Amino acid sequence: MAIQLDYTNMLADVVDGGVPVADWQQAEKEFGALRAQLGALRAKGVLGFLDLPGDRSLAQSVIDYAKNAAGKFDDVIVLGIGGSALGPIAIRTALLAPNWNALSGDERKGQPRLHVLDNVDPRTISALLQRLDLRRSLFVVTSKSGGTAETMAQYLVVRERLTAAVGDRARDHLVFITDPKSGALRPLSQAEKITALDIPSNVGGRYSVLTPVGTLPAALVGVDVSAMLAGAADMAARCDADALARNPAATFAVLQHAADVKKGRHIHILMPYSDPLRDMADWFVQLWAESLGKHRSPSDPGLGPTPLAALGATDQHSQVQLFMEGPPDKTVTFITVGEIGADVTIPALHKDVKELAYLGGHRLGELLAVEQQATAGALARRGRPNMKLHLDRVDAWHLGALFMFLESATIHAGMLYGVDSLNQPGVELGKNFTYAMLGRPGSDEARRELALLPKPNPERVV
Amino acid sequence: MAIQLDYTNMLADVVDGGVPVADWQQAEKEFGALRAQLGALRAKGVLGFLDLPGDRSLAQSVIDYAKNAAGKFDDVIVLGIGGSALGPIAIRTALLAPNWNALSGDERKGQPRLHVLDNVDPRTISALLQRLDLRRSLFVVTSKSGGTAETMAQYLVVRERLTAAVGDRARDHLVFITDPKSGALRPLSQAEKITALDIPSNVGGRYSVLTPVGTLPAALVGVDVSAMLAGAADMAARCDADALARNPAATFAVLQHAADVKKGRHIHILMPYSDPLRDMADWFVQLWAESLGKHRSPSDPGLGPTPLAALGATDQHSQVQLFMEGPPDKTVTFITVGEIGADVTIPALHKDVKELAYLGGHRLGELLAVEQQATAGALARRGRPNMKLHLDRVDAWHLGALFMFLESATIHAGMLYGVDSLNQPGVELGKNFTYAMLGRPGSDEARRELALLPKPNPERVV
Repeated sequence: MAIQLDYTNMLADVVDGGVPVADWQQAEKEFGALRAQLGALRAKGVLGFLDLPGDRSLAQSVIDYAKNAAGKFDDVIVLGIGGSALGPIAIRTALLAPNWNALSGDERKGQPRLHVLDNVDPRTISALLQRLDLRRSLFVVTSKSGGTAETMAQYLVVRERLTAAVGDRARDHLVFITDPKSGALRPLSQAEKITALDIPSNVGGRYSVLTPVGTLPAALVGVDVSAMLAGAADMAARCDADALARNPAATFAVLQHAADVKKGRHIHILMPYSDPLRDMADWFVQLWAESLGKHRSPSDPGLGPTPLAALGATDQHSQVQLFMEGPPDKTVTFITVGEIGADVTIPALHKDVKELAYLGGHRLGELLAVEQQATAGALARRGRPNMKLHLDRVDAWHLGALFMFLESATIHAGMLYGVDSLNQPGVELGKNFTYAMLGRPGSDEARRELALLPKPNPERVV
Repeated sequence: MAIQLDYTNMLADVVDGGVPVADWQQAEKEFGALRAQLGALRAKGVLGFLDLPGDRSLAQSVIDYAKNAAGKFDDVIVLGIGGSALGPIAIRTALLAPNWNALSGDERKGQPRLHVLDNVDPRTISALLQRLDLRRSLFVVTSKSGGTAETMAQYLVVRERLTAAVGDRARDHLVFITDPKSGALRPLSQAEKITALDIPSNVGGRYSVLTPVGTLPAALVGVDVSAMLAGAADMAARCDADALARNPAATFAVLQHAADVKKGRHIHILMPYSDPLRDMADWFVQLWAESLGKHRSPSDPGLGPTPLAALGATDQHSQVQLFMEGPPDKTVTFITVGEIGADVTIPALHKDVKELAYLGGHRLGELLAVEQQATAGALARRGRPNMKLHLDRVDAWHLGALFMFLESATIHAGMLYGVDSLNQPGVELGKNFTYAMLGRPGSDEARRELALLPKPNPERVV
């Protein structure tokens, strides 16, 4: 069981446009300083996500809750957005059968369906609520701060429907996942006697997938949460290595950062060649974008790479033209998978259609693997640096390891870029404008600022 | 019924970092030359997509086929990738109920489920094939060239399964969509007596959504294809206006191009605030990336903007931090929707939880609309240019208009960037490497090149 990062094609002695070897060697020499910086962050206690694999009582709270819920529900619905939704979605896509929610209960081995409501579009919410049997539904309300407008709006809608359907027993159809101390959800859980599981205070939303945010939805549909945490523990240890060349997260971060600042490769693509891992790329996009896209002062124009999600082989017919011939501003990180389960042989045509004869006898999984190698080779040939994360298989253990790898890499990258990879101050202004428009008390300043915004100019509408 | 583009926030007199007004005025003066260039392209006959709304016989072939198929199938499965898949997926998400494929036949009004297999991952294909009743399934095999490896591999797998299930009647469970003259699918359709509908020769894959590529899957699940084409016709006429300020496609293209080359805004985000339109962004990504990401000569490093898909309000909790405070290298185009169907009122909490009281009495759709305005305002305030495409509602008519708008905009942008927006030469090398690795005859040159590629270096694996 392992995840390996092959960065052969990232370095300039092999791929034109890659990271100069001297820069890589310099980073190896300076790695001690980066380690010291990481140590200081850990000592401050802000990197709580690193401790999650060892937090047995938190894991046990999830396992106990899921055990108690077993058999009671046909549908589990996560109400959450951003870091509260992307992890559960990635886990569902990776570990449950495709079209899980269309399978019969027998096919799902009696496990509930898993839905994630990650937006406030009324069409989606109404369509789902209409179809649910609320007496057999469990709503997982996830918000670190307890004040997320979208999630709280969903919760208020659901709360009313549940109360109409099951009265006081609504509390048995709700579970909160939130900060142990602060925010609106915690007192609400006490007042309404609703179970609340913890997101430790020192774990931010986008680093929270290994808290109940990700593990509770997973456990409720039968995923082996202990294996997921074991994979994460293994990776956390590897990402604590003192030598750069033995530290996969630091290697990834150093190469991406150097490719950006030394070679202008500021668009970082994550491209799994695996349907199960397709939504991992969206999870990574939040992590990398929200952690690293920062300005260091109000006069700083802003910095940070732009992450981009792609899927192989599908995007060979969409984005790869741009990756090959567009501006030399990108790196591509492939994810490949060793064991892909039962492969499917491509039959030969009984008639000899010459153009297709070459496919017969090969397997679909082989085709997928070959296409990844071909695309990596073509990109290398064109001077487009790329690397490859290889997973032995897609299971709970490897998924946990992959989450931890990318989280640790993000912290390393934040130190290299010189930004705080744990906050997201840039979204406050939009939130305050929303509050002002909805008439929330205390938003007078935002209301005054709103009045200064450009008005739609009818002459600039076509 | 209309689509409007509001570009107030794209110009520098209103938003720092926007397109200088002088450049916009200059573009208005030079628009005649762009129109002449477009006329020359049209005269060459390469812009076949512009003629699709008026191609009654092509539309009739679709309507007739769907009429004949009515009631015969429970599942329609598109086998296609890239331009053959993204359009059907966007149409399904926009016009069918969420979770369409999990609805009962009654809820779907007897219409078949619609699946799109857009990759060769054996897990996805096996899971779907296991669940289908092949006697009640129709496979739509879509490939312009008839030689797409992924789609042909899927077809060969399906063909064998169908023959085992229904023998000679397999032909009644297959329909091809391909070039009228060239490629492997056309002779195959004749040899095996399988119906084949046309993608006109002068319509490339990513411009083909208004051919049977998009319209047949749509018609098979009850979408009003005539309304879709009528919306496209209306938009095609608007995008043929001689004055820049009255031509929405040209306006979009000129502003994006100027924002890129004058202000370094080379990442172009499409961000619908609408769940139904979320997959439109992926369709746009292919169109914009594959059409504009080009080098003009082998020594040219490459050019073209990088499109990026986002979703509001969801991505306010993922990518918006980067859009706000990251490098000033982006434009954001929002899509908003007027009528969103039955809205949902957010109830007040019976207990006074102060932090949430402001939400009560507002509606979910209102919250979505307010958040878009807040985000646009915050971006404007930070000097981040943005614009807004507004649709009166999401229906077949508006979807057809939106497709045509973005296709026409892409052609205009191609002329401004000075690239051929109709080809995709950059993907050939990867294809040839794949052929060589699979042993396809005639790939000797690619095989020789393969041998020259960098070998994985075990010292660069961690």
